[in-house]
Amino acid sequence: MLIVMHHGATAAQILAVEEAVEAMGLRAEPIPGSERTAIGVLGNQGYVDDTTIRELPGVREVIHVSKPYKLVSRDFHPAPTVVEAGGVLVGEGLPPVIMAGPCSIESEAQMLASARLVKAAGAHILRGGAFKPRTGPHTFQGLGVEGLKYLRSAGDETGMPVVTEVMRIGQLEDVCRYADILQIGARNMQNFDLLKEVGKTGHPVLLKRGMSATIEEFLSAAEYILAEGNERVILCERGIRTFERATRNTLDLSVATLIRELSHLPIIVDPSHATGKRSLVPVMSKAALVAGAHGLMIEVHPEPEKALCDGAQSLNGEGFTGLMNDLRGLMKYLGY
Amino acid sequence: MLIVMHHGATAAQILAVEEAVEAMGLRAEPIPGSERTAIGVLGNQGYVDDTTIRELPGVREVIHVSKPYKLVSRDFHPAPTVVEAGGVLVGEGLPPVIMAGPCSIESEAQMLASARLVKAAGAHILRGGAFKPRTGPHTFQGLGVEGLKYLRSAGDETGMPVVTEVMRIGQLEDVCRYADILQIGARNMQNFDLLKEVGKTGHPVLLKRGMSATIEEFLSAAEYILAEGNERVILCERGIRTFERATRNTLDLSVATLIRELSHLPIIVDPSHATGKRSLVPVMSKAALVAGAHGLMIEVHPEPEKALCDGAQSLNGEGFTGLMNDLRGLMKYLGY
Amino acid sequence: MLIVMHHGATAAQILAVEEAVEAMGLRAEPIPGSERTAIGVLGNQGYVDDTTIRELPGVREVIHVSKPYKLVSRDFHPAPTVVEAGGVLVGEGLPPVIMAGPCSIESEAQMLASARLVKAAGAHILRGGAFKPRTGPHTFQGLGVEGLKYLRSAGDETGMPVVTEVMRIGQLEDVCRYADILQIGARNMQNFDLLKEVGKTGHPVLLKRGMSATIEEFLSAAEYILAEGNERVILCERGIRTFERATRNTLDLSVATLIRELSHLPIIVDPSHATGKRSLVPVMSKAALVAGAHGLMIEVHPEPEKALCDGAQSLNGEGFTGLMNDLRGLMKYLGY
Amino acid sequence: MLIVMHHGATAAQILAVEEAVEAMGLRAEPIPGSERTAIGVLGNQGYVDDTTIRELPGVREVIHVSKPYKLVSRDFHPAPTVVEAGGVLVGEGLPPVIMAGPCSIESEAQMLASARLVKAAGAHILRGGAFKPRTGPHTFQGLGVEGLKYLRSAGDETGMPVVTEVMRIGQLEDVCRYADILQIGARNMQNFDLLKEVGKTGHPVLLKRGMSATIEEFLSAAEYILAEGNERVILCERGIRTFERATRNTLDLSVATLIRELSHLPIIVDPSHATGKRSLVPVMSKAALVAGAHGLMIEVHPEPEKALCDGAQSLNGEGFTGLMNDLRGLMKYLGY
Repeated sequence: MLIVMHHGATAAQILAVEEAVEAMGLRAEPIPGSERTAIGVLGNQGYVDDTTIRELPGVREVIHVSKPYKLVSRDFHPAPTVVEAGGVLVGEGLPPVIMAGPCSIESEAQMLASARLVKAAGAHILRGGAFKPRTGPHTFQGLGVEGLKYLRSAGDETGMPVVTEVMRIGQLEDVCRYADILQIGARNMQNFDLLKEVGKTGHPVLLKRGMSATIEEFLSAAEYILAEGNERVILCERGIRTFERATRNTLDLSVATLIRELSHLPIIVDPSHATGKRSLVPVMSKAALVAGAHGLMIEVHPEPEKALCDGAQSLNGEGFTGLMNDLRGLMKYLGY
Repeated sequence: MLIVMHHGATAAQILAVEEAVEAMGLRAEPIPGSERTAIGVLGNQGYVDDTTIRELPGVREVIHVSKPYKLVSRDFHPAPTVVEAGGVLVGEGLPPVIMAGPCSIESEAQMLASARLVKAAGAHILRGGAFKPRTGPHTFQGLGVEGLKYLRSAGDETGMPVVTEVMRIGQLEDVCRYADILQIGARNMQNFDLLKEVGKTGHPVLLKRGMSATIEEFLSAAEYILAEGNERVILCERGIRTFERATRNTLDLSVATLIRELSHLPIIVDPSHATGKRSLVPVMSKAALVAGAHGLMIEVHPEPEKALCDGAQSLNGEGFTGLMNDLRGLMKYLGY
Repeated sequence: MLIVMHHGATAAQILAVEEAVEAMGLRAEPIPGSERTAIGVLGNQGYVDDTTIRELPGVREVIHVSKPYKLVSRDFHPAPTVVEAGGVLVGEGLPPVIMAGPCSIESEAQMLASARLVKAAGAHILRGGAFKPRTGPHTFQGLGVEGLKYLRSAGDETGMPVVTEVMRIGQLEDVCRYADILQIGARNMQNFDLLKEVGKTGHPVLLKRGMSATIEEFLSAAEYILAEGNERVILCERGIRTFERATRNTLDLSVATLIRELSHLPIIVDPSHATGKRSLVPVMSKAALVAGAHGLMIEVHPEPEKALCDGAQSLNGEGFTGLMNDLRGLMKYLGY
Repeated sequence: MLIVMHHGATAAQILAVEEAVEAMGLRAEPIPGSERTAIGVLGNQGYVDDTTIRELPGVREVIHVSKPYKLVSRDFHPAPTVVEAGGVLVGEGLPPVIMAGPCSIESEAQMLASARLVKAAGAHILRGGAFKPRTGPHTFQGLGVEGLKYLRSAGDETGMPVVTEVMRIGQLEDVCRYADILQIGARNMQNFDLLKEVGKTGHPVLLKRGMSATIEEFLSAAEYILAEGNERVILCERGIRTFERATRNTLDLSVATLIRELSHLPIIVDPSHATGKRSLVPVMSKAALVAGAHGLMIEVHPEPEKALCDGAQSLNGEGFTGLMNDLRGLMKYLGY
């Protein structure tokens, strides 16, 4: 940690800061500069809470060198983590994993049709939402446990593990019974209690980046899961909120590469939620794999124009089959 | 709802959209323009899910005229709502209500000292966090139920109702037992299950705006609570996330005024979390009241430099007392 | 400057960085930490260009302690600057200055009517745009030099100095002839050549914050003007671009206070462009003054519903007169 | 254009709006809804200025169906535009064009070494900055006309056309003499006078997206150039400003695809400025081409660690040669 003092900080103020640092059991090392003094803080084991220092008189800024996460960091765990879920492996050095299926589970028939469609096209993992986070309460909220059963049986019938979102701790038992991967949605990325409980289950987790989460916050959220002893975490970039509204969100692909540098966890990309526009999904899927994503999550619906949710960003059977054919060419280029 | 067609949309595409609209039991009204055709959708009772239409061939854009919220809207409930909590009234036409206290409850002594301090200075409601949402798992997470008891007894001792954050459904029973107002934090603004359960309690709720929530999303989150029959909701602006990092968040004061136009619910402002800097709190508190806020939530700590959390934005006793004296002058100017 | 090394940086990499620092004529001071080494850079006179160091092998991050501006900083110029323009004084300790007038100058009659209106209500400086920056080329671009003449004569007739935007260096001579204050618009905040030329004129300048400019960039832009020897700069906050679209921009009022801490230059607020909504202008004007702004810039049009530009955010005569009456009460409260 | 009235708008207010529309020579078509009335506006030839209507009593919102640009739109110009510059063609259906070179021109030797390096590796167009926009005035501002000469002679020597930034109208004559393509930087994207003058030259233009420009604003800026009769415009995505600071900007790759839908102009991507990190440049270059970019602009410096500007994002010779080898494989996959 580095404490930067104001230009006009007095010797007494600098001394008081040094004493406050030492009161925390750490060592203070003043670095006089031409314009202002900075104080290096030494001896800390990891991230230091700067609360007691940040607004002492004469302090201008506190700069952290350590990060609020450690278990997810490459620095302390250089080997990449490969997550196994229902027999499918996700991670560095492996062919990208394709998760596909409808935004929400609408009926047994729709779920099964979706599963057959995506399986035939070559998907590895089946997705479908039983509990749906919707902006307002007056729209379809999902089929709940009934939906979970449809998802499970569609997965079993077609031989694919399944992933679905869990929104509250009380749903965890049901979701763990029926699903192979627990998805934490963007809106719950900082629902820390849910993260802890999901960590305790030991179940594979798909953690989506929050709408306005920095990479540091994203990795810190994953840290909550790992801190409970669960290393089976797949990260998922799904677009961030920016001023641009021509797309639903702004897909931040640099993050896939950057996270591969910062963390050992696998990272996949969801181009459907990121762009919100069907016409952009295929091209951004390919860009994501080229940018280093370990997999994709794609919304597919047999009849998008009749979907109860997010039809505008769902591919239909033909669209998804075409994309998967394209991806096979791309994977050859990528060396898989 | 208005459906805007592409410049080159064919007559057949326009017809297909009209049929899709009518299949939903609504009426389609084409509006030919010089550059493109638009189709008005009539007959809907409220917000229409545009999923099945947004990406039909030839559709360029779907524009909503209705909003995803209704119960919180001034349009359908012109009279302002005054929320009563523990004997204190918050809302239009009433003197602004000051909620104050430490970010987190650290000990019985610290809580009681804080309560006495803020009461003496003129606060109306006592705040304190027992369950703390922290970016990473390796920092202080709050005292839990023990903390709730300290808060309650400090409130009782000094004669103030108390407000505290609830982070998970499993904590609701405890928090309802000890607190007069349930706070939903920014990170949980779209934790829809928590909103629903909080709605069912009938308890007064303080709902903070999410870090990157639009006003529409903010009001829609409140709609979840009202939809369960609970109208006792106080909204709270606490800064939004922008590119600017000189302050912790960007305090969006226009929102206070705008929400008074759009909704009948009271709105207060939290300048402490919004700015993250103690030196900005007093001046932004005053600006917030002038901008029409029905109250303030301010972090106060007897010894900010020793606080376990967010000390940098907490006022000390002297600072808060000075601010309250200032506010008395301001309230006179404002006519209270 | 502080250079933070990666966790696994080798001794050779650390040495190479130290050598690179010393090759720049500076001194390197390693600060070993528990997780990684940091290297303090000493001996610099002001901001150091980090280019040659930032991506040396093993470097994780470079952190600046000095800022890219100096002349505008309070640190080196503690006394507040009061800017005089056409006999009106703007700055700390003085009554707030009100600049008002139409967004664009449309005719001699409209300009004179506007001037009389705002003068009668109590404005101090007259505004009006002769050169208009418009998003697309197919809308009204302003009356040009003809407009400048109308503005000048309206100002003379009513006894007010005038402020108007200059968009290109070639206009400077004309604008200096007719206007008392040169306005640099938000879109030109980083038009560095224009800033330099405006600096050379010695004329008072009103510098608007760019749509996505940080405070550091804003002050650095002002630094360009001061570096040419012109200290007569008034800063102007006019809202920043965020994800929120319910208002045209997000008015960042904390900045008014914060800039008073960081710089000696006066800062005013433009609530008209910031909010884009007439109904929000009066309340945000008052909030701005309470937040410490040294003045306001407000759009007023005799007939906003017929304005050629930005009518939606313009007050009419009645609205402005009402606001000015309100402000008189507020100024009394503020002690002027 | 669609005018949405408030829920409680009176019949008189609706009538007044209809009259205002008709006063503009347009036709008003009321569309009554269950919650509120909307008024369709017919008969306009292109974008309508909504100023006189947006804040009439009872108006809630004005929604535009037409866009502020027309000449750059695919709607009115379906065939893709291929821009020729110094014998190199940029546009749809053609192999991607690689522009490369140093951020700034530092000396004749450095420029020539850079040119040879990028030519040998396979670049098509040489870049180099003679006029540099820098945040603060106290850093290197470029060599000016001297630099232009070095750039030109390095281009001639190695047989590549050259591109360089023009910052002010007064530089246009010189830049047109020495350069094949005029670059407009992000900070000048809405320097409308510069755009107009650049339009008049008829010279090929590389227009960079502004830091916080929406796609609509970006295309409208290009419209300024086309409106002067110059269709030789290449658009360039270079990252937008968001809350995320782990990368210098957020590269918005979806835009490449989306702009291909909306406009006939070619679009290239600058991964160097977008990410600000050398390690991300190669991977994002490939992702950009897969996302449909018609070219790349890449910073290359013979000795990045000695660069006077932006060394951290520059590739060295080895890095660029490796990238170009990679790109050859990718282009084969892409079918070129």
